[in-house]
Amino acid sequence: MAAAPGPAVDAGRVIADLRELQRRTGDAQGAQRLCWGAVWRQAREFLAELLGEIGVEPERDEAGNLWASLDEDREPAIAVGSHVDSVPDGGWLDGALGVMAAVGVLRAWAEAGETPARPLTLVDWADEEGARFGRSLFGSSAFAGTLEPDQVRALTDPDGRTLPEALADNDVDLDRVLDCGARRQGLGAYLELHIEQGPVMEAEGMAVAAVAGCAGVERHRFRFDGQASHAGTTPMDRRRDAGLAAADAALRIEGIAVRNHGVATTGALVLRPGIATAVAGEAELLVDLRNPDPDSLATMLAEALSSGQIEADKRDCELSTELVWRIDPIPFDEQLVALAREAASDAGGRDDPLTSGALHDAAEVARVLPAAMVFVPSIGGISHAKEEDTAEADLAAGIETFGALVNRVVAQT
Amino acid sequence: MAAAPGPAVDAGRVIADLRELQRRTGDAQGAQRLCWGAVWRQAREFLAELLGEIGVEPERDEAGNLWASLDEDREPAIAVGSHVDSVPDGGWLDGALGVMAAVGVLRAWAEAGETPARPLTLVDWADEEGARFGRSLFGSSAFAGTLEPDQVRALTDPDGRTLPEALADNDVDLDRVLDCGARRQGLGAYLELHIEQGPVMEAEGMAVAAVAGCAGVERHRFRFDGQASHAGTTPMDRRRDAGLAAADAALRIEGIAVRNHGVATTGALVLRPGIATAVAGEAELLVDLRNPDPDSLATMLAEALSSGQIEADKRDCELSTELVWRIDPIPFDEQLVALAREAASDAGGRDDPLTSGALHDAAEVARVLPAAMVFVPSIGGISHAKEEDTAEADLAAGIETFGALVNRVVAQT
Repeated sequence: MAAAPGPAVDAGRVIADLRELQRRTGDAQGAQRLCWGAVWRQAREFLAELLGEIGVEPERDEAGNLWASLDEDREPAIAVGSHVDSVPDGGWLDGALGVMAAVGVLRAWAEAGETPARPLTLVDWADEEGARFGRSLFGSSAFAGTLEPDQVRALTDPDGRTLPEALADNDVDLDRVLDCGARRQGLGAYLELHIEQGPVMEAEGMAVAAVAGCAGVERHRFRFDGQASHAGTTPMDRRRDAGLAAADAALRIEGIAVRNHGVATTGALVLRPGIATAVAGEAELLVDLRNPDPDSLATMLAEALSSGQIEADKRDCELSTELVWRIDPIPFDEQLVALAREAASDAGGRDDPLTSGALHDAAEVARVLPAAMVFVPSIGGISHAKEEDTAEADLAAGIETFGALVNRVVAQT
Repeated sequence: MAAAPGPAVDAGRVIADLRELQRRTGDAQGAQRLCWGAVWRQAREFLAELLGEIGVEPERDEAGNLWASLDEDREPAIAVGSHVDSVPDGGWLDGALGVMAAVGVLRAWAEAGETPARPLTLVDWADEEGARFGRSLFGSSAFAGTLEPDQVRALTDPDGRTLPEALADNDVDLDRVLDCGARRQGLGAYLELHIEQGPVMEAEGMAVAAVAGCAGVERHRFRFDGQASHAGTTPMDRRRDAGLAAADAALRIEGIAVRNHGVATTGALVLRPGIATAVAGEAELLVDLRNPDPDSLATMLAEALSSGQIEADKRDCELSTELVWRIDPIPFDEQLVALAREAASDAGGRDDPLTSGALHDAAEVARVLPAAMVFVPSIGGISHAKEEDTAEADLAAGIETFGALVNRVVAQT
């Protein structure tokens, strides 16, 4: 299929902007754009500089999201963006790629002196990572209306400061963040470019792929209570070893993920007292289950709970479980995904869309607007680390494909 | 067999002394006689008071061990004792029982106005627990000559103070501690009463038992190195999950202990990064293996190492292992164990001797002197906790049996 008309994005310039962002806000340990802090604000100042060069003035909404419109008087607009915040010691591309590609899209139209058939709006969502207070997708969930201020009011950072205090430092009032949802009515679609943060595309040799949606997540705390006892004096048949109950449960849960074509992770396990000379009396295991299919996800959870109970019973331990967080699978807009597939396919990328196992701002936005995403590969599947990287040719292919997708969406509607 | 002549120990008075010790040095959280600290010194002051009442003056050796002799001019003497130091928030009986029973033995002879055929010496070993600096059996290993000062010189407590500094507070010079070994030549035997710290005797309904020796210990650190990766984006078949490798190894090691009639504990497992959203890239598992039989212990270690390697290979992880600490099985003196069995059997206790899975000062002393121990049960097998307790009737039986054993040893030689 022929590409839609519209200016091409200068991928080399976007990559140069990304490198400059990292030079200004990163250090030897990686990206340091922790949301609500000074370095994050510096990143936004650089973003404002870039937008200023094309005569666009950014503005902030009530949740701290940053918006910049090329032609704000017409509706509905197409929003393009991601987030500039990062985890501590993070990677240079996670989030920043999508924001700088969105700058590239606006710049392409501005410098071509053309007016798109639909106005374009850049958005930089606030606190996607939740790295400081543990609440991810802050700005985009405020926009979607799913954030509940009372549920985050008491969150504190490791220094004991509360989320409302950190928000106030940035002139954001927690009780007004949902007001930003008023911007929904001016928008008709949302598009986001992001790194895959996994190893699939690299293994397939694919430079670019459309994304069909985000997997659902069930995250639960499994607590096994047995009996702490002396490593030397407690015979094997008199132990109530909570650590081994958790180990057995973790291994069963791995099998559950494989059988149900999902993923399951048990990466956090804490034993108490946690010493060489005592049988563990308590074990706390965090169980993270993901599946793009809601029924399969429900099956995985039921099987995981049942396996935990079986292993607890086997070792005379008590099992208690607690929901930590859950989200339903979120499919993206069929029509937009189809356009993203065409754009990816035209660039020699993956024919089939991927499902994202990670969450993105687009998952929140998709609740209230048609949305879709484009992925580029991650070298070694590594993300949230200073080693995070993507081959320059793949970055360029992704940025150009994203620009071509925006042109298709502009032309379609 | 008829009991040997000699005065009987007043068990009620020993139990009253134990309660008074706990009243003076414990609190609502348990025993607080942490070695080298003020409360531990208070415990020793109380011990000196009790000894003073029978006209015995205690003295300290170069390692901080306390000695008190009824009749010091004759040799060889029989040493009786244990340790008054405790872990923080510890139990009232661990160590203190053996020391107070030894006071009871000396008091019985002193108050009877009799002179034993062999002189009796009470010993209170310094820092059995190693709770502050991590080095157990300090005083008894100095006595046995197995302590290496240079290996403990750099140990620090949680406040950053070094062991030599804490020793200096107690007028102990680390470079002179081995000099206390000169006392070995005046001694012919060592006897110790202790709580079992495990559930076996309670389950059998036995009030008292002889101890045949201490199990050997192999304690090793197993480190699995895989690859940390994103919980959502890493397919199950592309993971290198170090946490699951460690979990599988821990379960195999459990089976190894059962098959080899020993015990194995994997109570310390640390995952990194240790968060719900990442596959564990590193797992550190402490493996503690115990067996009274040296060949079986060696088999357990070989099988554990091999299982760790198999599980690491299965998940494409690297395994590295490191010796943390080891000690050979230590059999007690055959003749003394036989006398202890007779004394236990006479008291309606266990006919067969137990093997101790925990280490005791007697294990160090047994390297250089004939030694044996007597155990009383622990309610629920609980020790190193404020709940540590033994039924009063069992305590009395143990104290009386210990006194009878001393009388047998005195009469025998």
